[in-house]
Amino acid sequence: GGVGVQTMDGQFGMRLKGRVMTDAALVQDAVPNVKKGEVKDRLGSAAELRSVRLGLEGWFYGDWEYQLEVDFAGDDTNVGDAWLGYSGFDRSRIRVGAIKEPFGLEEQTSALNTTFMEPALPGALVPGRNVGVAYDTHGESWSLALGLFGEGLDDGDDNDVGDEGWGGGFRATYAPIAGARRALHLGLAANYRTYGANPDYEDSRLRLRSRPESHVADTWLLDTDDDLVAVDAAARLGLEAAAVLGAFSLQGEYLQASVTRGDGQQDLLFDGYYAYASWFLTGESRNYDARHGEFDRIRPLRNFGRGGPGAWEFGLRYSALDLEDGDIEGGVARNFTLGVNWYLNPQLRLMANYIWVDTEPDAFGNDNDPRILQLRAQYDF
Amino acid sequence: GGVGVQTMDGQFGMRLKGRVMTDAALVQDAVPNVKKGEVKDRLGSAAELRSVRLGLEGWFYGDWEYQLEVDFAGDDTNVGDAWLGYSGFDRSRIRVGAIKEPFGLEEQTSALNTTFMEPALPGALVPGRNVGVAYDTHGESWSLALGLFGEGLDDGDDNDVGDEGWGGGFRATYAPIAGARRALHLGLAANYRTYGANPDYEDSRLRLRSRPESHVADTWLLDTDDDLVAVDAAARLGLEAAAVLGAFSLQGEYLQASVTRGDGQQDLLFDGYYAYASWFLTGESRNYDARHGEFDRIRPLRNFGRGGPGAWEFGLRYSALDLEDGDIEGGVARNFTLGVNWYLNPQLRLMANYIWVDTEPDAFGNDNDPRILQLRAQYDF
Amino acid sequence: GGVGVQTMDGQFGMRLKGRVMTDAALVQDAVPNVKKGEVKDRLGSAAELRSVRLGLEGWFYGDWEYQLEVDFAGDDTNVGDAWLGYSGFDRSRIRVGAIKEPFGLEEQTSALNTTFMEPALPGALVPGRNVGVAYDTHGESWSLALGLFGEGLDDGDDNDVGDEGWGGGFRATYAPIAGARRALHLGLAANYRTYGANPDYEDSRLRLRSRPESHVADTWLLDTDDDLVAVDAAARLGLEAAAVLGAFSLQGEYLQASVTRGDGQQDLLFDGYYAYASWFLTGESRNYDARHGEFDRIRPLRNFGRGGPGAWEFGLRYSALDLEDGDIEGGVARNFTLGVNWYLNPQLRLMANYIWVDTEPDAFGNDNDPRILQLRAQYDF
Repeated sequence: GGVGVQTMDGQFGMRLKGRVMTDAALVQDAVPNVKKGEVKDRLGSAAELRSVRLGLEGWFYGDWEYQLEVDFAGDDTNVGDAWLGYSGFDRSRIRVGAIKEPFGLEEQTSALNTTFMEPALPGALVPGRNVGVAYDTHGESWSLALGLFGEGLDDGDDNDVGDEGWGGGFRATYAPIAGARRALHLGLAANYRTYGANPDYEDSRLRLRSRPESHVADTWLLDTDDDLVAVDAAARLGLEAAAVLGAFSLQGEYLQASVTRGDGQQDLLFDGYYAYASWFLTGESRNYDARHGEFDRIRPLRNFGRGGPGAWEFGLRYSALDLEDGDIEGGVARNFTLGVNWYLNPQLRLMANYIWVDTEPDAFGNDNDPRILQLRAQYDF
Repeated sequence: GGVGVQTMDGQFGMRLKGRVMTDAALVQDAVPNVKKGEVKDRLGSAAELRSVRLGLEGWFYGDWEYQLEVDFAGDDTNVGDAWLGYSGFDRSRIRVGAIKEPFGLEEQTSALNTTFMEPALPGALVPGRNVGVAYDTHGESWSLALGLFGEGLDDGDDNDVGDEGWGGGFRATYAPIAGARRALHLGLAANYRTYGANPDYEDSRLRLRSRPESHVADTWLLDTDDDLVAVDAAARLGLEAAAVLGAFSLQGEYLQASVTRGDGQQDLLFDGYYAYASWFLTGESRNYDARHGEFDRIRPLRNFGRGGPGAWEFGLRYSALDLEDGDIEGGVARNFTLGVNWYLNPQLRLMANYIWVDTEPDAFGNDNDPRILQLRAQYDF
Repeated sequence: GGVGVQTMDGQFGMRLKGRVMTDAALVQDAVPNVKKGEVKDRLGSAAELRSVRLGLEGWFYGDWEYQLEVDFAGDDTNVGDAWLGYSGFDRSRIRVGAIKEPFGLEEQTSALNTTFMEPALPGALVPGRNVGVAYDTHGESWSLALGLFGEGLDDGDDNDVGDEGWGGGFRATYAPIAGARRALHLGLAANYRTYGANPDYEDSRLRLRSRPESHVADTWLLDTDDDLVAVDAAARLGLEAAAVLGAFSLQGEYLQASVTRGDGQQDLLFDGYYAYASWFLTGESRNYDARHGEFDRIRPLRNFGRGGPGAWEFGLRYSALDLEDGDIEGGVARNFTLGVNWYLNPQLRLMANYIWVDTEPDAFGNDNDPRILQLRAQYDF
């Protein structure tokens, strides 16, 4: 995929990349979200471009590399990875720019390669992509990444008052088994971020929220909204495990965020977890990369349209997230998702997810239990 | 134009595209637009970047193709065509993503190739580009396109409540004559879209509006504004005809939108039409493509700057739009436009349009009859 | 840097470009900005992507050239240079599109090549990039540019009422000495822009403002805010001088804006200046281009990482800006900046600036004298 060029001596090179994901969702049995007497939203059937991304990656003078991605889907343009890296060291790399903080297995895996259309519910607890410095190193069966970060890409603007928050953390992974079709992955991540604890500043607010594992059916069913104010700090913890055994694989994570607040407010703890199984009818194996502790692109054994069936994958996921603690009523949800993926070739994937949502209650105090059928056509180059 | 690469076997390829259009307008005799006692706007002289577009198109594994366009002009970034297509069938293609709904001759023709700077007034009635699935097929002298679509690219976000509207339609064209310099084009399109008929939801509003065939002199002279609420559905009809006879050509369309509303409100009908003639002083012929029922790029017989004059085209257009019916007072307009195009080479075109606007009344109840001289420098690659 | 292609005959070509700048700032001793009893902002420590830019430049049919740049940093996407040019004349060129108005030495020099991270304080007085037409010509030791421009890229939209403002101006430079490591530069620019003098229209407001030479520590310390209304016209004047003597160089500018207003308000004059010295420890020389009157990219004598040190540059700048006159109290500031630049190779530069800010008072009436340490990692291709 993509188009790349490089100099004869390999010292300079560049590659152009892109992706488009088109989604549609059918929603059944959603109840309106009423907050303070006002209908704020209701989960609904819809179609959207989920991602429209262009990117460039390249290297120069041998040891320097860069990545630059922009996503045009939705109302805003969002910068994705945008970093400069130096990899002249042995098996390690230092990067500066906009980088995903090292935290979470599903978070670190490219959305092109995840088994389900959207991250599981506890994805609400990851720190996401911020501007900072990161270092990573690896062996054949382990990886370590650590970083120090300012705030997100759309901050640093007129609305900020005073110092930004700062955060840092690490992620370590180890694979006791790291073979081509047989792997065992273990991961641990911790992250700490300051928010300033100022009751009057927007920068001291922390908002944790989650859609019902559907982006196109666009509602934050779980949401701490504006209630988490005067936040001093959030300490995040992530535990990961995954196993690949031929065409079969398992994956699970437990994520936690401990929040301390100023003004004598009590400490809070929010957490969630998920576990899923995946199986390839056509015999492929999930493509584990032990040197980065993540999963890579699936390549069908026989592409579709050349007499082959492509690759067919079936997945079943259970996930849970609890955004209720103390005075914060952000909702609780437990989802079941059945997924079917058809990889026609390495660049093209059709996906179908059927999600049973079970909130008790959601952020609006309702017992809102919709079911969502969502479809995706995804290609990248 | 553009830069493309492909593999030796032709199975994979990519092409980089771009365009910039720079406009300026001089406006005479415009009256201020006063609504509810407040001056909302007044047509004025100005300069702007009308379009700043980058795009990629490509194909992979032979039968799969994609297109991805982003336009950066104005305050917002807008995704243009962004679709994945399969053309492994005989003379037909299926696409998914952001696609122009199949409706209207001027609408389907790329803005790079239209005779006048902006679409005629009835362009206010086309459904535009939405996210969905489309199928098209063709013979040597006919084309058929049909599609099913959700909503636009900037929807599906926090403001939506409940289900989006859905729409679908077809466009069929036939060319009894389909030669290189002699063609006769006939077209028919129908389109139906639901809006939910909910008096409280923004999604059930339909806004039809039109600038005076000038984008840079930026005012919606005809505009149903927020008045069309609780819309149940809109049924659109389009009739097209065009003829090419050497350097001379004619083109015309009639477009209609029938609107049904809930809450016991009466049904409405809005319509418009245009007709124009074009003539190439330098002998070129408008470039009709019978397999898609649209007009393609003009290639001057002798480019300018190599001793040649480029291509010189003169056009005269009459257009009319009526957005008044029942309780809706969106205005009525009739425009005359005189256009001169200078194609210096296939990539570069300078345009001048002089527009006599005749509203009676415009959306603000005024008899606003400005004249607009507008200029464009357009190149693409 | 970058990747370019061209046809064998050199008549067509294209080059892909990009840049990313990542900044971080530590701020000491800033006081809160209180205006009308409300804390509006406070300079604070932060990190940000300063620039994330993609661009294409190319030429076609020999004499036609274009440039198209988009920057994705911050909340908005901004079009940079986006123009079409004809250079078929001898030593001269005409361009149409979005172009920096010809004014100011630091303004004309690409941010990739300036000695300090941000323009000096009087940069608040330059007219910036607008949509229009420009002509430039040059000899071996002089340049002349002139242009006529409408408004900026994000104007021409719904908020505008009536005619836009128009502006025009010229910049002339002369280099009595124009050698490779020895140069003397003199420059003069004048610019005139109309604003309509309408007390009710936003288009007749002029806002002059400046950050404290730090973008990431994001506050407009000097700011005329909404106070400059009913502006009739602004006449700008710029004087430039620079000298290069081997590894040592000097540069300075004086900029002035004379503002006339309607409604019988008094005339106003705002001005500022800066001067700086630069010295390369490693022996490089600032790269003066006498045919455009600007400074180009630094190429280290020996790149870092191949046994060489890269290029090390030290700079010291003094700058001043006075936005107070008559009834307008936009503040007064004088800054000292110490800068260190490490050019690892022609594409990669690390920068550190330490800024002593001295306002008396700032736009909020405070004696706000923070010190700022800011860092940048910059690469382009």
